[in-house]
Amino acid sequence: MKKVVLAFSGGLDTSYCAKYLSDELGYEVHAVTINTGGFDEKDQKELEEKALQLGVSNFRFIEETANFYQKGVKYLLFGNVLKNNTYPLSVSAERVFQALAIANHANEIDADAIAHGSTGAGNDQIRFDLVFQSLCPDKEIITPIRDRTLSRHEEIEFLKSHGVEANWEKALYSINQGLWGTSVGGKETLTSDQFLPDEAFPTPQLKEEPETIEIEFNRGEPVTVNGEKGDPVKVITKLNRIAGGFGIGRDIHVGDTIIGIKGRVGFEAPAPLILIRAHHTLEKHVLSKHQLFIKDNLAQWYGNLMHEGQYLDPVMRDIESYLNSSQQHVTGKVYVMLAPHRFQVLGISSKYDQMQSSLGQYGEMNVGWTGDDARGFAKLFSNQTKIYKSIHDEHV
Amino acid sequence: MKKVVLAFSGGLDTSYCAKYLSDELGYEVHAVTINTGGFDEKDQKELEEKALQLGVSNFRFIEETANFYQKGVKYLLFGNVLKNNTYPLSVSAERVFQALAIANHANEIDADAIAHGSTGAGNDQIRFDLVFQSLCPDKEIITPIRDRTLSRHEEIEFLKSHGVEANWEKALYSINQGLWGTSVGGKETLTSDQFLPDEAFPTPQLKEEPETIEIEFNRGEPVTVNGEKGDPVKVITKLNRIAGGFGIGRDIHVGDTIIGIKGRVGFEAPAPLILIRAHHTLEKHVLSKHQLFIKDNLAQWYGNLMHEGQYLDPVMRDIESYLNSSQQHVTGKVYVMLAPHRFQVLGISSKYDQMQSSLGQYGEMNVGWTGDDARGFAKLFSNQTKIYKSIHDEHV
Amino acid sequence: MKKVVLAFSGGLDTSYCAKYLSDELGYEVHAVTINTGGFDEKDQKELEEKALQLGVSNFRFIEETANFYQKGVKYLLFGNVLKNNTYPLSVSAERVFQALAIANHANEIDADAIAHGSTGAGNDQIRFDLVFQSLCPDKEIITPIRDRTLSRHEEIEFLKSHGVEANWEKALYSINQGLWGTSVGGKETLTSDQFLPDEAFPTPQLKEEPETIEIEFNRGEPVTVNGEKGDPVKVITKLNRIAGGFGIGRDIHVGDTIIGIKGRVGFEAPAPLILIRAHHTLEKHVLSKHQLFIKDNLAQWYGNLMHEGQYLDPVMRDIESYLNSSQQHVTGKVYVMLAPHRFQVLGISSKYDQMQSSLGQYGEMNVGWTGDDARGFAKLFSNQTKIYKSIHDEHV
Amino acid sequence: MKKVVLAFSGGLDTSYCAKYLSDELGYEVHAVTINTGGFDEKDQKELEEKALQLGVSNFRFIEETANFYQKGVKYLLFGNVLKNNTYPLSVSAERVFQALAIANHANEIDADAIAHGSTGAGNDQIRFDLVFQSLCPDKEIITPIRDRTLSRHEEIEFLKSHGVEANWEKALYSINQGLWGTSVGGKETLTSDQFLPDEAFPTPQLKEEPETIEIEFNRGEPVTVNGEKGDPVKVITKLNRIAGGFGIGRDIHVGDTIIGIKGRVGFEAPAPLILIRAHHTLEKHVLSKHQLFIKDNLAQWYGNLMHEGQYLDPVMRDIESYLNSSQQHVTGKVYVMLAPHRFQVLGISSKYDQMQSSLGQYGEMNVGWTGDDARGFAKLFSNQTKIYKSIHDEHV
Repeated sequence: MKKVVLAFSGGLDTSYCAKYLSDELGYEVHAVTINTGGFDEKDQKELEEKALQLGVSNFRFIEETANFYQKGVKYLLFGNVLKNNTYPLSVSAERVFQALAIANHANEIDADAIAHGSTGAGNDQIRFDLVFQSLCPDKEIITPIRDRTLSRHEEIEFLKSHGVEANWEKALYSINQGLWGTSVGGKETLTSDQFLPDEAFPTPQLKEEPETIEIEFNRGEPVTVNGEKGDPVKVITKLNRIAGGFGIGRDIHVGDTIIGIKGRVGFEAPAPLILIRAHHTLEKHVLSKHQLFIKDNLAQWYGNLMHEGQYLDPVMRDIESYLNSSQQHVTGKVYVMLAPHRFQVLGISSKYDQMQSSLGQYGEMNVGWTGDDARGFAKLFSNQTKIYKSIHDEHV
Repeated sequence: MKKVVLAFSGGLDTSYCAKYLSDELGYEVHAVTINTGGFDEKDQKELEEKALQLGVSNFRFIEETANFYQKGVKYLLFGNVLKNNTYPLSVSAERVFQALAIANHANEIDADAIAHGSTGAGNDQIRFDLVFQSLCPDKEIITPIRDRTLSRHEEIEFLKSHGVEANWEKALYSINQGLWGTSVGGKETLTSDQFLPDEAFPTPQLKEEPETIEIEFNRGEPVTVNGEKGDPVKVITKLNRIAGGFGIGRDIHVGDTIIGIKGRVGFEAPAPLILIRAHHTLEKHVLSKHQLFIKDNLAQWYGNLMHEGQYLDPVMRDIESYLNSSQQHVTGKVYVMLAPHRFQVLGISSKYDQMQSSLGQYGEMNVGWTGDDARGFAKLFSNQTKIYKSIHDEHV
Repeated sequence: MKKVVLAFSGGLDTSYCAKYLSDELGYEVHAVTINTGGFDEKDQKELEEKALQLGVSNFRFIEETANFYQKGVKYLLFGNVLKNNTYPLSVSAERVFQALAIANHANEIDADAIAHGSTGAGNDQIRFDLVFQSLCPDKEIITPIRDRTLSRHEEIEFLKSHGVEANWEKALYSINQGLWGTSVGGKETLTSDQFLPDEAFPTPQLKEEPETIEIEFNRGEPVTVNGEKGDPVKVITKLNRIAGGFGIGRDIHVGDTIIGIKGRVGFEAPAPLILIRAHHTLEKHVLSKHQLFIKDNLAQWYGNLMHEGQYLDPVMRDIESYLNSSQQHVTGKVYVMLAPHRFQVLGISSKYDQMQSSLGQYGEMNVGWTGDDARGFAKLFSNQTKIYKSIHDEHV
Repeated sequence: MKKVVLAFSGGLDTSYCAKYLSDELGYEVHAVTINTGGFDEKDQKELEEKALQLGVSNFRFIEETANFYQKGVKYLLFGNVLKNNTYPLSVSAERVFQALAIANHANEIDADAIAHGSTGAGNDQIRFDLVFQSLCPDKEIITPIRDRTLSRHEEIEFLKSHGVEANWEKALYSINQGLWGTSVGGKETLTSDQFLPDEAFPTPQLKEEPETIEIEFNRGEPVTVNGEKGDPVKVITKLNRIAGGFGIGRDIHVGDTIIGIKGRVGFEAPAPLILIRAHHTLEKHVLSKHQLFIKDNLAQWYGNLMHEGQYLDPVMRDIESYLNSSQQHVTGKVYVMLAPHRFQVLGISSKYDQMQSSLGQYGEMNVGWTGDDARGFAKLFSNQTKIYKSIHDEHV
């Protein structure tokens, strides 16, 4: 009997796949769910029960959150990556790491095929396919939803006729939760002009009183919130909890999909947005002008390639080397004020702060150089334009 | 008698310069104030009075706001320029256009020298010098404050001893207002860890009730707010008024000065921050992926060179050509919700919106291609990584 | 009867297509050949005869060389575009303009379909498809060779059985000639380690005696060679003739195809290589440091997107605007020495030459500034690193 | 008695400095010459003699070639750095490493000052100053030539009057030799239109018969020429000898100096030019498309910052990390044909060659995908432009 690994989420589409793969295609179905921060123990239990009810021969829940942070999220933070200055790539990055874990699992159990429940209209199908093509070139990729384009009704009928009864009522919004943010899709996100209502976001805004927190970074990684030590995954989780209560980090991103159409996605990502801004502010104090400028451009590449599922391109390792190098001195504390639906970075302290120097103080006094030095600087700095103007006499 | 054009702001430093230039150096002093959006008629009157009291032979108030918008602000908006993702370059850009107007004026009246009141510790000295060196290479540049490094007390004593009495008490914060934002410096901005208190920002936050506004762009330029037509300068001014009442657009930027030290500057820039985000959102709907990516990098160059006073480098004209071309279809309406200290872009509508297409809807349905097409796409898209992986067998 | 436009080259593949489309698929076949500089009148005659012998209902020879220059080659030259610093994109660019002309023709005659003879293993199939998908989304694209993967033998047999006899013997090398260079593929180019023999290149090296030529550029465009005025297409053609006799401009490029595999292509492109280097040298004299640096990066984008057939992406128009702006002062003469298999740019003269300035002469004397000015420049220029070093004490 | 370290080259300027510093300024002069590949044992002897004749209290010859390669040249090669696609930065990079060694030496012997013989019109003064300002901020920098602007005649008279007689006749060309190339300045390089005559280049072209060589790279570093193992410094030296005999690698570069004027410099750099092209060709076979593109841009930054003396900016360490990562698989052999005044890379062989894959062969056959897959790829690849064209109806 041929083995297929099915990327299982517990939703209608992958439930349909589970049944279809075993009953119609005759596969031994190995369902797997990869946790990249969105599932807790209760979820895990429910997923397992659902999977077994569908008659899969095997269910595996693979914990990948720490790996996702170490190999992906960390670099998105080092690069202050916000797609088009908006979206922290919450789902984009997650899918890649889910695909990697699935591919590795499929290789380990020597599966004949891998199945995923993606439609033909989104990014995820490409992210999954790219990773599977690269890591398991000999395994068939089965995508029943993409190939058969069934309606929800047809899927439900199929499941019923195979003895699976469940409440498949469609939620108003489709939610995808993970370490680096939660996406929210549906209704308004299908328009161009409407914003999501408050109730579409899963975390309710309950806090009203502003509070100030302190985040500590060590070589670019967040290591404490309010002084309590923890590994970065715990810091992110804790920060999501603290800031989520303020309804911070909600927005809609419209962006270019891998398949050339534009797509709009709502999200709620309090920790990512706060950490990126806090981290960037710290960097502005401790990195050189050129470090800031060049890193920015490289980080955009990193984000775009991650978004497009090209994590396995070796250029990503090159950029990670760069980012690692750049973080050597990104160490210090950042102070952030949280308030309903907004936050404000207040300032930083760092032993590597380049602002506090004995050479001079911006706009106030120059100790390390004289007025004549500055005049000489400006003179030579203007040479090229001066020569240009002496040749060309356009009016400005 | 030799003529000097003095960039005059009415403050202690340039008042000292006026007196020093005429009484000590024996110049015929032509004071000029360039308006780039920060002065109204009342200010103009006061400036003129002050200047004449100081005994200058001539005062000119030159209106440059429209020019500043047309040749500078417009491109900063086209490029969504925020220095280090924070600061709209409010003062940086303004100084350049003030310098240009002063240089042109000095050339027109055939002055022998130009004077400015900059210290040796800031950016402005370089911006002024660069422009003067390029446009008036033969005129002497006189900078008494930079050269003599006097204390405020010494300047006041000098003025007194020359018969000028005034209230020179130093304001707690130094404020610079203009079309593209207001800077706020002093006390906390000299630290790395403290934020400015509410009262440091000149526009008080009085409004509490959120409101939704509509901004219309035509080829990248803001042409209406809430439906009322106006030239962009008026639109910006109006938006500053509406959003300023919410205390929107306040932040502190720490950045690299032209002279290599880090400097921190507070600012209040409601219209720039809202317009940039609104404009960028519209662009995400109407520009191609490559247009968005490449423009971003070019715009950072534009912003950095503007910041460093290199506006006269011909590369700026090349980038402006690019930006003009890119805005051809950036036309449509953007809906923005304003609330105390924050705003949210809600959505857009545009006849050039690429999201509403019959080819497919993101994540939902594909009409213009089949599942097999998508599979083929992913297959070829993965070719390079697949080949790479077949050669190299690192574990991922 | 349904109409198909067939991109016709006269070779075996497109001959097969002509017959197959009419006899097997029942199409009214409109064969077209697009000239982008590789065909003369004699070729045109032969192509027409061949096409008619194959029984097409119509043959059109469309002259596109001037258009190819104006809308493509010109910008490749403005950008000094050499793919991976090697290949002037001879065929890559040509195919795009052939596809555009074919698409326009198909729209004009209201064809139902477009056919091309590309295999499934190259770049051309994608370039053709991309343009046709964008400009004629409703026309079917028929690619018999890609779809049926026939051997040469099978194609010949098919043609014979349909009454077409001809000498289809395969040339040792496949040659594609055009205004911007000639490609040479086969045998050695399928290896990684072998170079093409002299006889593989169509233009024999006959000249031995070095000669010096003068090329004049006006706003970036080549307008004379050796003083004889002409439009750029004629200048390029003439230069190809002069320099081709020296065997100049031969090389092999290995590059990334659009479909993710690496491909190697030989070429002979004397005029493009000489013009690009001459033009670049002139630019180094007349453009600013920033103009040179930024243009370089943009031009690489332009080249890569052109190579990948994405000429219709609006970002290409934006880059063209940039390039046009940058060429405003790229006017002057360039002196080049030609010798067997090599050339050397000797120097330039231009009224916009920034090297000849009264401010100073490199390494020799400074008139526009003093030693103290230079010292002051260096002092402030070192500020950031000095501060960095005062904080960090790594050994260098 | 105060100690000064003098960067000593044996020429008139630094000889003048030696005497001036001791006799006029009363310093204990510690002359040092830093070898970055241009001096042999005989030169060392002569330099020592000259220095001692001038009455310096101490002469040191510091061997830095290996360090120069390890920390500078290696990265220039990894990045295929040619300034403006022409100049391998021979002298530019060398000066930086000379400055570093001098600064370290001055710190070690606890000198009070550092002196160099640069004029005020070149790049070297800035490179020296920048490094000294950063590594020895408390030491005075003394630059007699820049400050006093003496004529050669005055310097000679001064030396004579202090008992130093020598033949100071000016060579027709000023030559600077080092591991990574030899610069040649004078006469023609001060014009824009003339090329250097053959006799200006120090290495005569004696070989006529073409020969083919094999260069082996290991992780980007050249480890053998014609099979003989050696450390990279030896390989470069050997290659310079072999190829120099052909007169390969001569050119003139015109470029932007740090001080804003244009400067022209002749050079002879056979090994650098051959190695860069050979290395780049190998990279085109073993790196991904994105690796090639992004590295190129980073490498240009690296070269420009090196050129401008900003080697100590920490961004250089970040870029080096990137470059190191990128070279992991740049291993293989490159075959190069040498002939008088030119060379031709023939091909490569590498176990990491991505061209030889079972998936398909460019233009010939596709095994890893079908014609339908390619059609699907092109369809989705065209989506964005197709949507764009459906909205906008400009004629192409």
